[in-house]
Amino acid sequence: MTTRKEVADRAGVSIAVVSYVLNDSNYVKEETRRKVLQAIEELGYETNMAARALKMRKTEQLAVLINHMGNPHEAGLLLRIEEHAAKHNYMLFFQTFQKEKESKLKALLNGRVDGIFLLGQSLQEDTLHHFRKQNIPIVSVTTPVTRTEDVTCIDLDWTFEYARLIRLLKAKGHKRIAFMAIRDPEHPLQHRLGAFRRAMETERLQLEENDVFYADEGGLQSAYDKIKPSLSSPDRYTAIVSANDLMAAGIVAACRDRAVHIPNELAVAGSEDILMSSQTAPPMTVIHYPREKVGEIAMEVMLAKMQKRPAADRILQATLVERKSS
Amino acid sequence: MTTRKEVADRAGVSIAVVSYVLNDSNYVKEETRRKVLQAIEELGYETNMAARALKMRKTEQLAVLINHMGNPHEAGLLLRIEEHAAKHNYMLFFQTFQKEKESKLKALLNGRVDGIFLLGQSLQEDTLHHFRKQNIPIVSVTTPVTRTEDVTCIDLDWTFEYARLIRLLKAKGHKRIAFMAIRDPEHPLQHRLGAFRRAMETERLQLEENDVFYADEGGLQSAYDKIKPSLSSPDRYTAIVSANDLMAAGIVAACRDRAVHIPNELAVAGSEDILMSSQTAPPMTVIHYPREKVGEIAMEVMLAKMQKRPAADRILQATLVERKSS
Repeated sequence: MTTRKEVADRAGVSIAVVSYVLNDSNYVKEETRRKVLQAIEELGYETNMAARALKMRKTEQLAVLINHMGNPHEAGLLLRIEEHAAKHNYMLFFQTFQKEKESKLKALLNGRVDGIFLLGQSLQEDTLHHFRKQNIPIVSVTTPVTRTEDVTCIDLDWTFEYARLIRLLKAKGHKRIAFMAIRDPEHPLQHRLGAFRRAMETERLQLEENDVFYADEGGLQSAYDKIKPSLSSPDRYTAIVSANDLMAAGIVAACRDRAVHIPNELAVAGSEDILMSSQTAPPMTVIHYPREKVGEIAMEVMLAKMQKRPAADRILQATLVERKSS
Repeated sequence: MTTRKEVADRAGVSIAVVSYVLNDSNYVKEETRRKVLQAIEELGYETNMAARALKMRKTEQLAVLINHMGNPHEAGLLLRIEEHAAKHNYMLFFQTFQKEKESKLKALLNGRVDGIFLLGQSLQEDTLHHFRKQNIPIVSVTTPVTRTEDVTCIDLDWTFEYARLIRLLKAKGHKRIAFMAIRDPEHPLQHRLGAFRRAMETERLQLEENDVFYADEGGLQSAYDKIKPSLSSPDRYTAIVSANDLMAAGIVAACRDRAVHIPNELAVAGSEDILMSSQTAPPMTVIHYPREKVGEIAMEVMLAKMQKRPAADRILQATLVERKSS
């Protein structure tokens, strides 16, 4: 196997210069760079990233642990984080986080990444401890159920956002507002349920425990199945807010199948503004989650942590998009 | 750093047994396994996957190169491939394929994966050559524009599928059927345009060159912008098929904004059956792409190639889902 020394000799430069070129550093003059690349080609030198990572402890890769690839809100977040990571020459890779395989995570990411993005998952203390020792920073887009000092969070002020949405519904005469939540107590969407409860209090409305629906998972079908039986009750909520947009779309589909008119008989609102929400019949009123901005800030916070600069949690502001479902 | 030998000595077993335990092999008795894990914990032995991969040349990881995370059809494919990979104890990771960074790909995946899934991208010969030398098999879900022997493909028989869809439209009186394609000549969706042309010939209909629309990229907005001006023409196609569902949704949105009634004034059909297609107004007629089955077969083909068994291209059959847009 060809070594860097041989490449350096061939190109008539020092080993350090070869390393600079391999790392895409800007310190090297274009002419020198070309000479080194030529030597690399002639000698058939190949950097093996795994070997290189071991030596350099810098991978130029970041991992994002995802919950559910099938959720367009998550997919949109990944796109935006990826865009901003690319601006700083980081490649991203995505892997689905599986709680039951968390113990494998340490080994899997060892030597492979310079930082980890979470989408609201709660990691165990020994996992956190491991990455702390390795100086691999962790940034979470979405607030996890279990907060720890290791993980810096970027999220909305959901209490504020829901209070604004509730005021919109109140202004249209709604007093009994339901919420579509999720059953799993460790799911990142739990945070939004807590915030909705507080927002209802702030707006002096009663959130009846019967009016909180717990879907089995965050998809359209799950919310459809959960909400459908309640729609035929003569004495029920007149508006419903869903913790995510896919579930809100499930509520809209259930209303269609039960001939419940939106918004006359039921107002429906989502929390993310995925593309689908603008295409349902009727199009949905939603909190517009600023995915673009969140991606930018997430990378900013990641860079700060990698460079050991102070990095506090960041709370961004959303906008309310009023469409025909409310 | 602690070695496997030290772990073996502490646990009173051979080095091979330590390796079995680290690889989650089933050959080890539960009691022995516990002894080894205890020794590992006491000695603070940590496997570094990068180091391990170098030594073992087996990573138990597969990469999927994706085109656009924001396309729910792709996201759905990833989910299904992931499910079936997990059944064979492979972890998947996803990375967006960027043509301009293809040269970095070799180094990035070196020592990190046992196989690569493509979603229809055409790789350059030197990239293919590299992975061939490394014995890393490549399987493509979706047919690339440039076919090579290295890449085994799983896809539908699009000519057959489109011919069936065209017959449905013909039976409803449509003679002039348009197609929403994509401009980029290397985009995997080009394959579907070629198939649609052949299907129109098979069904003895004329596909006018004016009736093929080329969106700038495969998203909703892009198709919306491209189709909208044509909708006001009094002499135009009466049905349109879109190479993907996101673009079909863009056509539905443009019809809504131009008050063109679907299906009375225009029939619209998609090619994948993403979730959104069942929620548009009206819900869309689509070819139902069997993502579940494709995921299963893709992993089956990958395993065959990894084990040097023969692996031919696989063509699956779809179903036609007739909804209210046609």
